[in-house]
Amino acid sequence: MTQWKIQPVVEGLQQARHDWREQQHRIKEFGGRELPSKEALKSILDDLCGILFPMRLGPADLRQETEDYYISYTLDHVLTALFSQVKLTLKYEKKREFNRKNVNIAEPLEHPIYDQQDTLAKIIVQDFANTLADIRRLLDADVSAAYHGDPAAHSVDEVLLCYPGIFAIIYHRIAHQLYASVPLLSRVISELAHSATGIDIHPGAKIGAGFFIDHGTGVVIGETCVIGERVRIYQAVTLGAKRFELDEQGALKKDYTRHPTVEDDVVIYAGATILGRIVIGQGSSIGGNVWLTHSVPAGSQIYQSPIEKHNKSDA
Amino acid sequence: MTQWKIQPVVEGLQQARHDWREQQHRIKEFGGRELPSKEALKSILDDLCGILFPMRLGPADLRQETEDYYISYTLDHVLTALFSQVKLTLKYEKKREFNRKNVNIAEPLEHPIYDQQDTLAKIIVQDFANTLADIRRLLDADVSAAYHGDPAAHSVDEVLLCYPGIFAIIYHRIAHQLYASVPLLSRVISELAHSATGIDIHPGAKIGAGFFIDHGTGVVIGETCVIGERVRIYQAVTLGAKRFELDEQGALKKDYTRHPTVEDDVVIYAGATILGRIVIGQGSSIGGNVWLTHSVPAGSQIYQSPIEKHNKSDA
Amino acid sequence: MTQWKIQPVVEGLQQARHDWREQQHRIKEFGGRELPSKEALKSILDDLCGILFPMRLGPADLRQETEDYYISYTLDHVLTALFSQVKLTLKYEKKREFNRKNVNIAEPLEHPIYDQQDTLAKIIVQDFANTLADIRRLLDADVSAAYHGDPAAHSVDEVLLCYPGIFAIIYHRIAHQLYASVPLLSRVISELAHSATGIDIHPGAKIGAGFFIDHGTGVVIGETCVIGERVRIYQAVTLGAKRFELDEQGALKKDYTRHPTVEDDVVIYAGATILGRIVIGQGSSIGGNVWLTHSVPAGSQIYQSPIEKHNKSDA
Amino acid sequence: MTQWKIQPVVEGLQQARHDWREQQHRIKEFGGRELPSKEALKSILDDLCGILFPMRLGPADLRQETEDYYISYTLDHVLTALFSQVKLTLKYEKKREFNRKNVNIAEPLEHPIYDQQDTLAKIIVQDFANTLADIRRLLDADVSAAYHGDPAAHSVDEVLLCYPGIFAIIYHRIAHQLYASVPLLSRVISELAHSATGIDIHPGAKIGAGFFIDHGTGVVIGETCVIGERVRIYQAVTLGAKRFELDEQGALKKDYTRHPTVEDDVVIYAGATILGRIVIGQGSSIGGNVWLTHSVPAGSQIYQSPIEKHNKSDA
Amino acid sequence: MTQWKIQPVVEGLQQARHDWREQQHRIKEFGGRELPSKEALKSILDDLCGILFPMRLGPADLRQETEDYYISYTLDHVLTALFSQVKLTLKYEKKREFNRKNVNIAEPLEHPIYDQQDTLAKIIVQDFANTLADIRRLLDADVSAAYHGDPAAHSVDEVLLCYPGIFAIIYHRIAHQLYASVPLLSRVISELAHSATGIDIHPGAKIGAGFFIDHGTGVVIGETCVIGERVRIYQAVTLGAKRFELDEQGALKKDYTRHPTVEDDVVIYAGATILGRIVIGQGSSIGGNVWLTHSVPAGSQIYQSPIEKHNKSDA
Amino acid sequence: MTQWKIQPVVEGLQQARHDWREQQHRIKEFGGRELPSKEALKSILDDLCGILFPMRLGPADLRQETEDYYISYTLDHVLTALFSQVKLTLKYEKKREFNRKNVNIAEPLEHPIYDQQDTLAKIIVQDFANTLADIRRLLDADVSAAYHGDPAAHSVDEVLLCYPGIFAIIYHRIAHQLYASVPLLSRVISELAHSATGIDIHPGAKIGAGFFIDHGTGVVIGETCVIGERVRIYQAVTLGAKRFELDEQGALKKDYTRHPTVEDDVVIYAGATILGRIVIGQGSSIGGNVWLTHSVPAGSQIYQSPIEKHNKSDA
Repeated sequence: MTQWKIQPVVEGLQQARHDWREQQHRIKEFGGRELPSKEALKSILDDLCGILFPMRLGPADLRQETEDYYISYTLDHVLTALFSQVKLTLKYEKKREFNRKNVNIAEPLEHPIYDQQDTLAKIIVQDFANTLADIRRLLDADVSAAYHGDPAAHSVDEVLLCYPGIFAIIYHRIAHQLYASVPLLSRVISELAHSATGIDIHPGAKIGAGFFIDHGTGVVIGETCVIGERVRIYQAVTLGAKRFELDEQGALKKDYTRHPTVEDDVVIYAGATILGRIVIGQGSSIGGNVWLTHSVPAGSQIYQSPIEKHNKSDA
Repeated sequence: MTQWKIQPVVEGLQQARHDWREQQHRIKEFGGRELPSKEALKSILDDLCGILFPMRLGPADLRQETEDYYISYTLDHVLTALFSQVKLTLKYEKKREFNRKNVNIAEPLEHPIYDQQDTLAKIIVQDFANTLADIRRLLDADVSAAYHGDPAAHSVDEVLLCYPGIFAIIYHRIAHQLYASVPLLSRVISELAHSATGIDIHPGAKIGAGFFIDHGTGVVIGETCVIGERVRIYQAVTLGAKRFELDEQGALKKDYTRHPTVEDDVVIYAGATILGRIVIGQGSSIGGNVWLTHSVPAGSQIYQSPIEKHNKSDA
Repeated sequence: MTQWKIQPVVEGLQQARHDWREQQHRIKEFGGRELPSKEALKSILDDLCGILFPMRLGPADLRQETEDYYISYTLDHVLTALFSQVKLTLKYEKKREFNRKNVNIAEPLEHPIYDQQDTLAKIIVQDFANTLADIRRLLDADVSAAYHGDPAAHSVDEVLLCYPGIFAIIYHRIAHQLYASVPLLSRVISELAHSATGIDIHPGAKIGAGFFIDHGTGVVIGETCVIGERVRIYQAVTLGAKRFELDEQGALKKDYTRHPTVEDDVVIYAGATILGRIVIGQGSSIGGNVWLTHSVPAGSQIYQSPIEKHNKSDA
Repeated sequence: MTQWKIQPVVEGLQQARHDWREQQHRIKEFGGRELPSKEALKSILDDLCGILFPMRLGPADLRQETEDYYISYTLDHVLTALFSQVKLTLKYEKKREFNRKNVNIAEPLEHPIYDQQDTLAKIIVQDFANTLADIRRLLDADVSAAYHGDPAAHSVDEVLLCYPGIFAIIYHRIAHQLYASVPLLSRVISELAHSATGIDIHPGAKIGAGFFIDHGTGVVIGETCVIGERVRIYQAVTLGAKRFELDEQGALKKDYTRHPTVEDDVVIYAGATILGRIVIGQGSSIGGNVWLTHSVPAGSQIYQSPIEKHNKSDA
Repeated sequence: MTQWKIQPVVEGLQQARHDWREQQHRIKEFGGRELPSKEALKSILDDLCGILFPMRLGPADLRQETEDYYISYTLDHVLTALFSQVKLTLKYEKKREFNRKNVNIAEPLEHPIYDQQDTLAKIIVQDFANTLADIRRLLDADVSAAYHGDPAAHSVDEVLLCYPGIFAIIYHRIAHQLYASVPLLSRVISELAHSATGIDIHPGAKIGAGFFIDHGTGVVIGETCVIGERVRIYQAVTLGAKRFELDEQGALKKDYTRHPTVEDDVVIYAGATILGRIVIGQGSSIGGNVWLTHSVPAGSQIYQSPIEKHNKSDA
Repeated sequence: MTQWKIQPVVEGLQQARHDWREQQHRIKEFGGRELPSKEALKSILDDLCGILFPMRLGPADLRQETEDYYISYTLDHVLTALFSQVKLTLKYEKKREFNRKNVNIAEPLEHPIYDQQDTLAKIIVQDFANTLADIRRLLDADVSAAYHGDPAAHSVDEVLLCYPGIFAIIYHRIAHQLYASVPLLSRVISELAHSATGIDIHPGAKIGAGFFIDHGTGVVIGETCVIGERVRIYQAVTLGAKRFELDEQGALKKDYTRHPTVEDDVVIYAGATILGRIVIGQGSSIGGNVWLTHSVPAGSQIYQSPIEKHNKSDA
C-alpha cells in the first residue's frame, strides 16, 4: 500500500491533458519543450542591465577603470545565452506553424528548416547587440526626465536605483527591440518587469525618449500604443483598447491597431483611462481618474469635473 | 566593551513582546513555531504548477514521453511536503483554540489531540490530490478564455507563460481547494500570488470555469464573492465589501457574506468598483471606473457618464 | 573571427557613457561604486523582521525560550551589515557634494573627511538600534488595527504572515527611521517593499500608530505626508502632490511640503485620490474613487456622487 | 516512441533490487528512509566547530564580545538538528532489530516503541551537549601539541586553520562521544573527516589528550584502539587488526578487541604499520615504515634496518 | 589610472598561451570549449547513485512504494545530461584528430562529421543505460563482500553509507562502462572518486564481482589491471607498472598492457606494492608493505620478513 | 523550561575559552576575526585557475576569441578579493606581534600601523599579479612533463582536467609566490590542495619546472625542500625532516633548513621516504618504499633489497 493514492491522480491528469490536446487540434507533440525560459531571461536581463549601466547596476566591486573589460566579457556571455533563448523561440514558432498547417512531420526538429532558424537567431542577436548603445542613450534621457520630473528625486543615481518606472523602461526598451523577431520571448521579458513593478507595458508599444512613469503600479500600456518624446505618466494610467473587433467568424481579431497615440510632452496623471485608437495632442495634460475615449488636440487640459460632495448618508 | 550597545535593545524588545503577549491574553507559548512557511509553500506551488502543466511549467528538460514519470514522482514528493504544512497549520489552530479557551496545558503539543490532527492532515492532502485533474480542467478553460478574450494573445502557450492572470488563477484554484480545511495556509498561497502579480483573490472566493483577468494589477476579489462561468475582469477591478457590520459588542463581525455575486458571462472593465452583497446579472458589462453598490439585472450595460471636460483652470 | 561582433558595441556604449557623464558635469569618477546594495539591504531587512517578530518572522526552528539568544546574535550581525551600507551611502553623498562643488580631489576616498563618515555611520546605526523596541510597539498597534479592521482577518498571526500592508509598514517604519540621515538608503528599502507589495510609501512620510492598509496594491503615499493615528487606507489610494512648484530658474523645486495631512481615525476607501498640502480632518471618511484637492473638516464624509448609469450605447 | 528506452532499464533495476532484498531476508520495507543524512551531519559539524572555536571556525563577522550570543543561539539550533538525526538513527536500528527477529509489524513506525526512541534521543543529545566543554579542553591540548610538535607551525591559529590532523580530531572527539549510543551516525561523521583529510579514525577508538597527527594522509586507526596522552603520529600510519577471528559458523567475528594500545608519549613515524592487540609501551618511538605485530616495552625505539642499497639493475 | 596594473599581466599571459599553443603544434582553436565538465559529471553521478540505490542514496523523502517513479523520471533526466557530456567528449576527440592530422577546417564544428558524433553519443548512452541493472548486481556483491569482510561493519547500510571503498567502486563500475567509448569522460569520473576517497582506480581496470577495498586511502589501481572475483584490498596498495617502455623515437609507449592480473579470492594487505605484468595466483595473500614484481602461483602467502629491530641509534 | 539545558553548556565553554586564552598569555582580544578565509581563498583560486588556463579551467561558455576580456575582468576582480585576504593576514600578524610583545593597545586596529599594512598589501598583490605569466609557463612545463611521463595520459587536456598532481602544483606555485609575504595565507591555500588531492606540499618548498606527481595520494613535501627541474614523484613519497632540533630551552627550533634537496631529473617511486637535509644527486632514481636518510651522488639508483618471501606462517 502506498502512502498516497497516486495512480488515479496521475491518470486523471493524463486524461485531462489528452482532452486538452485533442481540443487544441494539436498533432502529437514531439521531443522536449521549445519555449523561452523565465529564469534564463531573468539572468540575461540582469546582465544586460549591468552592461548598460555598469557602475550602477553591474557587479558591486566593479571600478570605472575596468568597465570595458567587464562589458566585453559579459556581452559575449550574454549574447550566447540570448542566442539559445532566441533559437528556442524560433523553433517553437516553427513547430506551431507546422501544427497549424497540420503538417505531420515525423521528426520535425531534425528537419533542415530548423538549421535555418539557427542562422536567423544569430542575425537577430547581433542586430540586437548593435542597438545597445542607442538603448543606453534613450535610457539616459529617461533617467534625466525622471530626475527633472519628480521633486522627490535627489539624484540621477537614486532614479536608477529606486524608480520602478526606470526598471520597467529598461526592460521595455530591450523587449521592444526583440519584439518584431521573437514576440513570445519579448512578452516574457515584459512580464518579468510587470511582476517586479506592477507596470505592464506590452513589448509592441513604441515609446520615445525621455519617458517617465512615476510610482507606476497599475500602469497598462497596450500593444499598439505610440508614445512620443518627453511623455510623463503616473500610477494606474491605462492606455488601452476601447473595444475588440471581431472577424467574420465572430472570433476576436488579433493584431490590429487599437491603442492610443500620445504625442510629445503629454502628461497623464494617476488613474486616467485612455482607450481606443485616439490621439492625445502634443503638450496636453490629462487629469487624474479621467476617462477618455476620443482624441484631443494639442495643448488640451482635460480634467475630471469636481464630483465629490459632502454627505452624511450611508455610502 | 562591545561594539554595539546591544543589551538595552534586546531588553527593550523583550519588554515590548511581553506587553504584546499580555495584551493578547496569550497563555505562555510552548515549543516552537507552528505556522505554515512561505518558502515551503512557494516550493510546493512550483511543483504543483509543474504537475498541472508538465510541458509548460515543469522542468525544462522534460519530454512528453516521460511526463507521467515526472508527475508520479513529483506528486509523491509534493503531497508529503504539503502534508507537513497542513499538519503545522492544524496544530497552530488547535493551539489557538486552547489559548482562546484559556486551557493551560503543560505540554499541549504532546497531547493526544495532536495525533488526531495528523490523521486529519492525511485526509485533507489526499482529498486535495484527488481534485487535481478537475483543477487542470478548470484551468484549461481559463487559459482558453484568456486566449480567446485578448487580441494580443498569440497562443495558449503565451497565455500560460506570460499572463499574470493565469498565474493568479492557478494559485487561487489550489488555495480555494484547501480553504475549507486549512484557511491560514490557503491565505499564504493567495498572498504569494498577490505579491507576484498584484492580483489579490481571497481563497474563499468561488470562481467558475473560463475566468480571465487581463493585466490584473490592483484587482481585489473578496472572501465571499461568487463568480460564475466565463467572467472577464480587467486591472484594478474591486469586488469588495460595502460596509462592515458590527456585533453587539461593537466589534467587527467576521465571516459573514458581504461581497458581490457575479453571474455567468459578465465583463467588468478596468477600475470598476463593485461593493456589497449585490448581484451582477448574467451577461452584463460593467464599464471602466464604474462605482456600483446595487444589483443590476441580466444583460445590463453600466457605464460611467462622460465626465471629462476641457478646462484651463488649475487641477 | 569572433562569433559576435563585440568591439563596436563596446565602443558605442563607451561613447554613450562618456556623453552622459559629460552632460552630468561629473568630475572623473574615482574608485569603485559607493552605493547601497539592494541585495544587502534585502538581507538586512529579513534579519530585522526576524528580530522584531522572532516567533513569526524569525527562523522556523526558533523556540520561544531562546528568542533572546537569537535576537542578540542577529542584532550584532545585522547592525554591522547595516553599518557597511550606511558608510557606503554617506561616502556616496560626500562624493556627490565634492562633485557638485567641482572639487577635484585626486584620491578623495582617502581624504580624511571619509573617516568622519565612519564615525557618523556608527552613531546612525546605534541610534537606529535604540529605536527598535519603539518600532515594535508601533507595529504591534498596526497589527492590532489590521486584525480589528478587516472582517476577513482570523488572527493576528494571519495578519503578520499574509497582509502586504503589514509587510509595507514594517519596511516603512524601518526606512523612515533612517530617512533623515541616509535618505538614499531608506529609498532603496521603500522600493523593496513597493516591489513586493505594490504599496509605495515614501520613507519621508510620517505615519502614526495603528495604521492599516488593506489589499494595498497601487497605494502611493508621498514624501511630505503626515498621517495621524488609527488611519485606515484601502488599495489604490493616492496621497500625492497636486502641482509641482518651479524655482526661479524654471526647474522643479525639490523637497518642499506638498502632500496631505491626514488626521487621526480617518478612513480612505479604495481608489481615492487626495492631492496637495491639504488637511483631512479627524475622523473623516473619504469614499472610493473620490478626487479631493481641498481640506475637509473633522468628521467629514466625502463620497462620489452616484455617477453610474444604464445605457446601451457603445462604451 | 520515447527518446531513451527506459522501461527495460527500470524493470532490470527493479528485479535486481528484489533479488537483493530477498537475499538479505528483508521483510518488506515500510515507509521512507530512516538513516542519518550526510548533508545534515556536515552542517551540524560545521555548527559544532563554530561553537567550539567561535573566533576561529565560527562566522567571519563574529566579534569576541558577542561570542556567547552566537553560541547560545547556534547551540539550540544544532542540538535540535542533531536530535532529528539521532531519532532517525535509533528508528533505523529498531527497524533492523524487528527485521532480524522477523517480526512483521504492519506499520511498525507507528508502534509505541518508536515514541520511546524519541525520549532516548533527547537524553543522548543533552548528554552530548554536556560534554562539549570537555571536548573543547581536549582539543585545546591537541592544538597545543600540534603547535609544539611541528617546527613548521607558526601559531596555534595556523594549526586550527590549516592542519588536517586537527580537523580530523575535532570530528573524532565529537563522533566518539556519540559512538556508544548511535554508532551508525558516528560512523558517518568519521567518514566526513576521512573524505576531507585522508585520515580514517574509527569513532570507537579511545584517544587521550594532546594527540597530534601530522600531514595525516593515509592514517588508519581501528575501532578498538586505545591511545594514551601526548601521542604523535605521522602520515600513513596504520593501527590495525592483525587477523580476523571467525565464529563457529565460519563467519567473521564482529566487535571484539583487535587493535593496538598505544601508551602515553609514544611517537609513530610515517608509514609504520602496527597490527593486533599489542601494547606500545610508554614513551616509545616507532620508526617510519616499521611493521610491528608484537608488544614493545616502555621506552622502546623501533626502527627499520637500513635496507636500501645502490644497484644499477632494473627495479 | 587603474588600481591594478592589469594590462601587462594580460599581455604576459597572452604570450605564454601563444607560446604553448605553438609548441603544441595546435592549429588555431575554433569556437568554445568541447570538454566534459566536472560539475556536470558530479551531478550525473549523484543521480546515478540514486538510481542504483534509491532508498539509500536517493532523495531523503523517497518511499519504497514510489521508487520506480523516481527512477524512471531521474533516468530520463540523467541520460539526457550524460548525452550532452558524451557529445562534448566525442567532439573534443574529433577536434584533436583533425588537429593531429593538421587538417585545417575553417568551421570544423559545423562539419557533417559532427552530426555523426551525435548519433554515436546516443548509442553510447543507451548502451550504458542497458547495463545499469548488471552494475547494480555487481555492486550488491561488492557491498556484501564489504559487510562480510570487515569486523567493524555492522550492516550493509553502514557499508553503503560510510565506506569510501564502496563509493569508489560505484564510480569505477560506471566509469569503466564508459571507458571504451569516451575514455576522457570516464577519467574525469574516476578523478571525482579519487578526490573524494583517496582511492585512484583507472577506469580501464577490469574488476570482478565482490570487490572490497577497506579504508582505501592511497590505493592505486592501474589502467591495464585485471582483477578477479572476491578480491580484497587494503589502504595504500599499489597495483602499478614496473617500468615504462619506450618506442623507437625514445618516447613513452602508450596504452600497452603493463599492470598486474590478480586472480579470484586474493587478499592484499595495506601498503603492498605489486608492479608489472605479473599474475597473483588465485587465493593468494600478499602481506602488508610487501614489494612484489614477479608472479606468484595460486595459494601463495607472501609476507615481508620481520625487519624491525630494537635500536637506540638515531634513525 | 527550555527544551535543551543550554546555559551550563555555554558557561562551560566560556570557562574553557577563558582558560585557554590565559594559558596562551593572550592580551584581551579586540574587534573581530582577522584571519584569511578558506571559502574566500577557494573562490580566489578558482578564478586564478581560470585566468591561467582560460579555455580549460575557465567558464564553460568561454570562447578563445574573447579570452582576454574574461581574463582582464576576472583579474581585476580576483586581485581585489586577494587584497582583502592579504590585508586580513597582515593585520593578524601585527596583532600577534603586539600580543607577543605584550603591548596593550586600546584600539590597536585603529592604530596608524594598520594603514601601513594596506599599502603593503597592495604591493604584495601587484607583485603577485606580475608573476602570473611566469607561473603559467612553469605550469605548462609541468603539464608537458605529466603528459610525457605517464603512459596512461592521452592528451595534455586530460592532464589538466584529471591529474591531481597538476591541481596540487597549480595551487603550490600560487601559494609559494605568496609564501614570503603572507605565510599563513599561503598555508591555507596549500591545505585546500591537500584536502582535494591528498598531496601535501608546504608552500615554502622550492620546486623547479617540469615537476610531475603521479597519483599523488600521501605525498608530503616539507617546508625547506629544494627540488630541481624535471623531477618525477609517485604516490606516498615523503620528503621530510629526519629529526627535530631543540633550542636551548628545549623547545622545538622553528624555521631551520631540515628537508632534502632533490636535484634535476630525479625520479622517486611510490612510498619512498627521504628524510633530512640531504642531497639526491642529479638524475638519480629512488625505488619504491626506499627509506633514505643520507645523500646520494648524481646518477644513483637506490632500490629496496628483495625482501618479500613465501611463507605459510601467520602474518
